[in-house]
Formats: sequence, structure tokens, C-alpha cells
Amino acid sequence: MAAALPLPHVTLVLGGARSGKSTYAEKLVEGTLAGGAPRPALLVATADLADSARHSDDEMAARVAMHRRRRGAHWQTIEEPVDIAAVLRRQDGTRPVLVDCLTLWLSNLLLRGHDVDSAGESLAAALADSRATVVLVANEVGLGIVPDNALARRFRDEAGRLNMRLARQAGQVVLLVAGLPMAIKGVLPA
Amino acid sequence: MAAALPLPHVTLVLGGARSGKSTYAEKLVEGTLAGGAPRPALLVATADLADSARHSDDEMAARVAMHRRRRGAHWQTIEEPVDIAAVLRRQDGTRPVLVDCLTLWLSNLLLRGHDVDSAGESLAAALADSRATVVLVANEVGLGIVPDNALARRFRDEAGRLNMRLARQAGQVVLLVAGLPMAIKGVLPA
Amino acid sequence: MAAALPLPHVTLVLGGARSGKSTYAEKLVEGTLAGGAPRPALLVATADLADSARHSDDEMAARVAMHRRRRGAHWQTIEEPVDIAAVLRRQDGTRPVLVDCLTLWLSNLLLRGHDVDSAGESLAAALADSRATVVLVANEVGLGIVPDNALARRFRDEAGRLNMRLARQAGQVVLLVAGLPMAIKGVLPA
Repeated sequence: MAAALPLPHVTLVLGGARSGKSTYAEKLVEGTLAGGAPRPALLVATADLADSARHSDDEMAARVAMHRRRRGAHWQTIEEPVDIAAVLRRQDGTRPVLVDCLTLWLSNLLLRGHDVDSAGESLAAALADSRATVVLVANEVGLGIVPDNALARRFRDEAGRLNMRLARQAGQVVLLVAGLPMAIKGVLPA
Repeated sequence: MAAALPLPHVTLVLGGARSGKSTYAEKLVEGTLAGGAPRPALLVATADLADSARHSDDEMAARVAMHRRRRGAHWQTIEEPVDIAAVLRRQDGTRPVLVDCLTLWLSNLLLRGHDVDSAGESLAAALADSRATVVLVANEVGLGIVPDNALARRFRDEAGRLNMRLARQAGQVVLLVAGLPMAIKGVLPA
Repeated sequence: MAAALPLPHVTLVLGGARSGKSTYAEKLVEGTLAGGAPRPALLVATADLADSARHSDDEMAARVAMHRRRRGAHWQTIEEPVDIAAVLRRQDGTRPVLVDCLTLWLSNLLLRGHDVDSAGESLAAALADSRATVVLVANEVGLGIVPDNALARRFRDEAGRLNMRLARQAGQVVLLVAGLPMAIKGVLPA
């Protein structure tokens, strides 16, 4: 029925744990927020499944399986735990791209000892250059008490910095709370 | 002075710790947000006071006593740590009901080994069927760093799922920040 | 180019870790949010640098140094970990004042065993009496999972109470998310 919604070149969807951010971002990308038939779309999944399997991370595996069931056949999935900039540069712009999620990607970078600041810069440049419309999902993790351990504090700081960088670049930023979208930049698609 | 405000059938009031959500929800239910005389109201308190006493949980007992002092004689209180669906079904609709809070109720369910998903479903059905206008208070707990232990992660996930379910059903959802209400669904009562 | 923006007598800028609240508040105080030349301003820095040095708190020292580099020569800085009420009372109102941040100040009070409730009252009175326009920065720390230890829970509760008190007094309250301001009281300066 309703036409697929026009999206800005880059959209950032933020939210806490279990806030409905992936579901909302999927509808945004496939163009079904207002109903209608979904369009073909690409998911860049940053969950490191090889790593999860190695560590028997059942929580993560279960979540990934659940998300996959929810998405239909019009989705193609690329698993890329690190080099999402390269994936974005390869796109020809015929389908919108969902990157889910950046906070996991940040965690992958830190675990591998990458320079997260220059990785953030490369990602920003790839987003600017990409021919595809891109929706990024990221966690908001900075609104609780200061974590006890230095690693968690560093992760929280890097996640905040990354979110700020991408929010500046995005044409639209949405914060999900209890499954409901709040516009924090731009106007919500009706 | 001002007339009591009309409320939707179900309202969800979300907020962090010490965000003013209980105070706001009480005013919403007794109809005093814009001033005027309070109307009779029922509080369904989910704090498990027997359990708190048994464990000498002074923090919780002190908080409950403070909340009770703040509320006036027009409030009746029912303590029900688990079966709030039954309480909602018993109402004849003559007074609005405040359930404070769902996150504590969720914690009670988990401690007793109940199936939280089916409890959530029963609650949603009881809300739909209830003759009373209901205001639900719940904590937003998903915006901090990922907790270290699996139990806290599970609690956070279940709380997020419950909030999403009830936000979908509610006609109005309000997020309290520093005592100030933000409308995330519907329009704030002036 | 653009004129410095008019500010209410008291503004409260809230946000999580690395949410851009200090940067936003600095621009608000120096009048450069909409561009233009900065006006002279005073920073009341509550970071206890003597204490940080004593404990070799490199994280804090690095952050303070970074913030200082960002601010220009039109800023004067007073370091005051405890008695910010006295600093506010001394102002003659010729320059706006930034207090950054109240959550650190609260932490300083708790570490020294001060009565935080009466300190909050004194601060509120000093704000009401001050001839200066004041912008307060504070952390929102209550939106994560309940902390394991009682001290962290107490800190979280006191921070929430302080934020509520000051939000009531402020003419404008802004919540920063990913560097973007959301108005939760009053209207955002354009």
C-alpha cells in the first residue's frame, strides 16, 4: 500500500538493550514502517559468529538465529565483524544497507587490538563515499553508573565517541525506547 | 481548580532510578498534575515487603515508607508481588489504578522461577479486559554498559521485552528524566 | 555573525558518558552554538585535580587536559571541588558561569562525608541568589541495571535526587544523546 519511505543517505538508530532498535531499523531499510511490500535489502551483520561458536556464546547465537528468522527472503546477509568500510564501498547503490550493529563492531575492534579511532574515521569516509543508503544500528551504553573496571569504562567512552561521530554525519538519528522511536535529529518517518 | 485529566485506558510511565516516575504516575492517577483535588485511587504495590523484611532489606523498606507518607488518604493500597493480572480483573472501574512497579514484579517472577513470558501475556490480557484505567510504572534499565553476570543480562533483556510489549499496548508512554516527562507515545497531559 | 543566545538564569545540561554534554554546555555559555565570536565566560571545574594527582588518576587528568585545550583564552577557570555555592555567590553577573560537573561534585561530597542533601539545598539557594547566568552540567546515571554494591546504588540515588532538584529550578533542561541536544524543559536555542 504505502510507498517505501525516502531515507537520508545515512541514518543512525540508537537504543539500549532490547529496545527494539534492530526491528525498527529493519523496517526502515526494507521500507515497511508504514506497511506495504518490503524491498530487497542487505544486512551487514557484525556479530562474530565464528568467535561466538569458539567461545560457545549461546546467548549471542540464539539472538542471531532469532533475528534471522524474523527477516524475510528479501534480505541478503553479509557477515563482517571488522571491515564494514570495505563492504560499504563495494555497494552499487541498488539496495539499502543495514549495519547491525556498530557497538559489536567496536567490541570486535577492541578485542583484536585495532586502532578504533582510525577505524571510525575510515568508516565515516566509506559512508560519505558509499553509493548506498545506509542505516546504522548502535547501542547507547553511557546512561548507567560508571563501570568498576577500566576496560568497561574505555569501551563506554569509545562507544560514546563513535556514536557522536556518526550522529554528526547522519541526516537522521532515532533513539528507541521501549520499542518506540524518538527523533533526536531530523523528522521521524510517519 | 483544574479538572482531573482524561487518561487513556493504559499508560506506561518509564524512567531510571530516582527519575521521579512514581511521583509523576501518582499525580497522573489521582488527577492532580494540573493542580486540583485528588480523586480516589488504588495502588497495586509489587514490592514484596514480607520478603524485604525477611532479608532485612532496609533500603527497600525505607523507600516504601517514604512513598506511603507522600500519598494521601484517598489512596488505597493492595500489596501484590505476583498476580497483578487478578487484581486488575477484579476492578469495577470506579477508580483508576496505579501499578508500581513492573520491574520489581518481573524480579519477583524471576526469583520464584515463574515463566515471565506467559506472565507478561496474562498481564497484557488482563489490561485489555480490565474495566479500570491503569497507569503502569516501569524502570528503563538497558541504557548502561552490558552487565558482567548472566543473571543481570537476562533481567535486563526481560525488562526490555516487557517494556516493549506494554508500550505497544499503552495509549500513552512517558519517559521521566530528572523528574521531567518526555512523551514517547501520545501527547503529554498539560 | 549570529548574536549570543539569551539564556535563562539557570540551565541544566544532562547526558551520559561521552554524550557531548561539556562541549554543548561550553558553546551555550560562550554563546557560540549558532556561530559568532565567543563571549568571556567562567568555568567552575569540580574535578579534584589534587586528589587525581595523588591517586595517579591518569584517565581524569587526560580528560581535564583535553577539555582545557578545547576551550579558548576567553575562558577563566576556577577549580572548586566542594564549595561551588560560594563561587556562585561571589559573581558580579558580568560573565556567564559553567559548572562542570555536578556529578563529580556529588562524588567529592560523598568521599568527604558531607551531607549531600544540605549541600544540594545550599547550591539551590546560591543559584537563586547568584547575579550570574549559570549553566550546570550533570551526568544521567540511572538508566542502567541496578548496581551490585550499595555505595554505587546510593550514589545513583543521590545523583538522581540532585538532578531532579536542579531540573525543577532550571528554566531550561537539555539531555544530550550522541552529541545531539533534546529539550526536556523549555525550548532549545536554535
